[in-house]
Amino acid sequence: MAPPSRLLPPALRILHRCRASTRSRFSTAASSLFSPPSKAVVYDEHGPPEQVLKVADVPPVEVGGRDVCVRMLAAPINPSDINRVEGVYPVRPPLPAAVGGYEGVGQVHALGPAVTAPLSLGDWVIPSPPSFGTWQTHIVKHESVWHKVRDDVPMEYAATVTVNPLTALRMLQDFVKLNSGDSIVQNGATSIVGQCVIQLAKVQGIHTINIIRDRPGSEEAKDKLKQLGADEVFTESQLNIKDVKSLLGALPVPALGFNCVGGNAASLILKFLRQGGTMVTYGGMSKRPVTVPTSYFIFKDISLRGFWLQKWMNSDKAEDCRIMIDYLLGLVHEGKLKYEMESIPFGEFSLALEKAMGKHGSQPKQVIRF
Amino acid sequence: MAPPSRLLPPALRILHRCRASTRSRFSTAASSLFSPPSKAVVYDEHGPPEQVLKVADVPPVEVGGRDVCVRMLAAPINPSDINRVEGVYPVRPPLPAAVGGYEGVGQVHALGPAVTAPLSLGDWVIPSPPSFGTWQTHIVKHESVWHKVRDDVPMEYAATVTVNPLTALRMLQDFVKLNSGDSIVQNGATSIVGQCVIQLAKVQGIHTINIIRDRPGSEEAKDKLKQLGADEVFTESQLNIKDVKSLLGALPVPALGFNCVGGNAASLILKFLRQGGTMVTYGGMSKRPVTVPTSYFIFKDISLRGFWLQKWMNSDKAEDCRIMIDYLLGLVHEGKLKYEMESIPFGEFSLALEKAMGKHGSQPKQVIRF
Repeated sequence: MAPPSRLLPPALRILHRCRASTRSRFSTAASSLFSPPSKAVVYDEHGPPEQVLKVADVPPVEVGGRDVCVRMLAAPINPSDINRVEGVYPVRPPLPAAVGGYEGVGQVHALGPAVTAPLSLGDWVIPSPPSFGTWQTHIVKHESVWHKVRDDVPMEYAATVTVNPLTALRMLQDFVKLNSGDSIVQNGATSIVGQCVIQLAKVQGIHTINIIRDRPGSEEAKDKLKQLGADEVFTESQLNIKDVKSLLGALPVPALGFNCVGGNAASLILKFLRQGGTMVTYGGMSKRPVTVPTSYFIFKDISLRGFWLQKWMNSDKAEDCRIMIDYLLGLVHEGKLKYEMESIPFGEFSLALEKAMGKHGSQPKQVIRF
Repeated sequence: MAPPSRLLPPALRILHRCRASTRSRFSTAASSLFSPPSKAVVYDEHGPPEQVLKVADVPPVEVGGRDVCVRMLAAPINPSDINRVEGVYPVRPPLPAAVGGYEGVGQVHALGPAVTAPLSLGDWVIPSPPSFGTWQTHIVKHESVWHKVRDDVPMEYAATVTVNPLTALRMLQDFVKLNSGDSIVQNGATSIVGQCVIQLAKVQGIHTINIIRDRPGSEEAKDKLKQLGADEVFTESQLNIKDVKSLLGALPVPALGFNCVGGNAASLILKFLRQGGTMVTYGGMSKRPVTVPTSYFIFKDISLRGFWLQKWMNSDKAEDCRIMIDYLLGLVHEGKLKYEMESIPFGEFSLALEKAMGKHGSQPKQVIRF
């Protein structure tokens, strides 16, 4: 399975060596390794992304001894990327000259002379944990940033495997011990995390009860989720009854629920949960709060928790991250994990951004190809 | 410290032996032990307590081999007692002929011949875990129900030690590991649980930040709580500022909060909590729900839990209950745990009920003396 580039002689392991016109004059080394001139989507201030984002030329960057220069292949526009640009996300890159993007996949383009990681030119790598600045044609970062991933899956999956699928996988593992045959309930089930929850739960033999918005095309959305493995899919209005649990049939009452919507859709999760159950909030698409009668806490012993991948990445559990990434891409390769994406060339970044921001109606996740 | 009654000869350990006129005719034993005729506050249907509760004569009850007959001394009217009568509490005694009350203290009046517990006539005992039917002059229950308690504290404390003080103690122990010097935040601080939280926290070196309603007399209420050991007491309107934490001075930001109010008072707890903090809801005095922006879960990693003593009593932790009762009554004896109560003779039960239901304005906890 070793990519062919591992077999190249060391001299050819540096694809691109250049003498940066200004810097090298003051360098004591006879020659330094630099990245190629790069293009990046940058912003100098927070604000509406379509106004503050611009494509800029980035001069070559020196590749230090243990740095790896990666030529990016693909990177998504996630909602959190947009929130970072807007300045409303709690953790953001410093201004000015911030580069957008947080995850993505690239190919090893050049290795610093002291790199010890088992990386070869041409290898596919992702920043893991993810890090700022993936909307860029070439990135130079310390070798420890990069995790080599399999290159026999569509690059869009390698580019998007962390923010959404890993969230789904962690949430299934971190809050309630689930066994095969158990069930979970979630709202926002048509989101990519929602679709991943359905498929990852199915792999573990866990049933899913799914809640979606009432909207034109909701029947098609139900069919699509059922094809992914959803056991039950309800629109919110279908759950406007006293005893939602009566709709469960033979499914066990869930002990775990995932909320990415808030408002009424969160209250529906709470109605489904069994005594002692846990609801995990990981998003707030409706922009409405979670509202809970006190009796749910006292008499139903419901716990409310939150999940944020970026915080988890900084915890001591994060060492599992790369193992889980490999597991997820394995499932992609086996055809057990899929979701819709639209690939757009880097040159059409503005169009991809508009689509990602919902300005062209409901659209698949936008993935930039460099 | 053994009460004098332990020294009585066995023959005198039965204070009351009677031949119940109807039952004993069918008894195979030459003589049976019966409780005295009793009076109890009973209800046959759920409804407004002042309408459905009545004082009834209860005929003598046989004291079985391992039963203990207790002459009740005092029992409180707790809000949950009222909710049980109203039929809105999830766990209630069966109808008809339900006896009100859930905790209280009594004196051992007669021991069944096969009782093995180290109980003597005249000992003070409480049902522990508490159980239904304490609004009654004499109660016959299996010896395992009764826990002997010290009799050198005011009987009103022995009668009320479980439902409120034990709730405060458990909540300080069960959710977040607290160390001396830490702080906690609570609303409804003038409630008895709130007052117990202040005093029990103080014993452990834990600071308390207390929130009370805006009302006439709130300054006196603040002073009273500070005399109990409260570090800070704020009315809700004082906290109508952007950064409530700026009011903390040298106190650490709390990791644990207790909510017995709901609505805005619960939101104020959330504002005080530090990253990763936990709010425990154990009451809903405002009858308003808890409302939480989703960002609190995701970015602030807040957990919301609930506490219900009755559920805890049924858990495997309940074996600690009697040890904790003894600890709490020890603090009462040392003057480290106190709260206001009003003792009312059983003959004036109706008045006590009216006061407990708030029909005479704000009143101390009502404790019936038999």
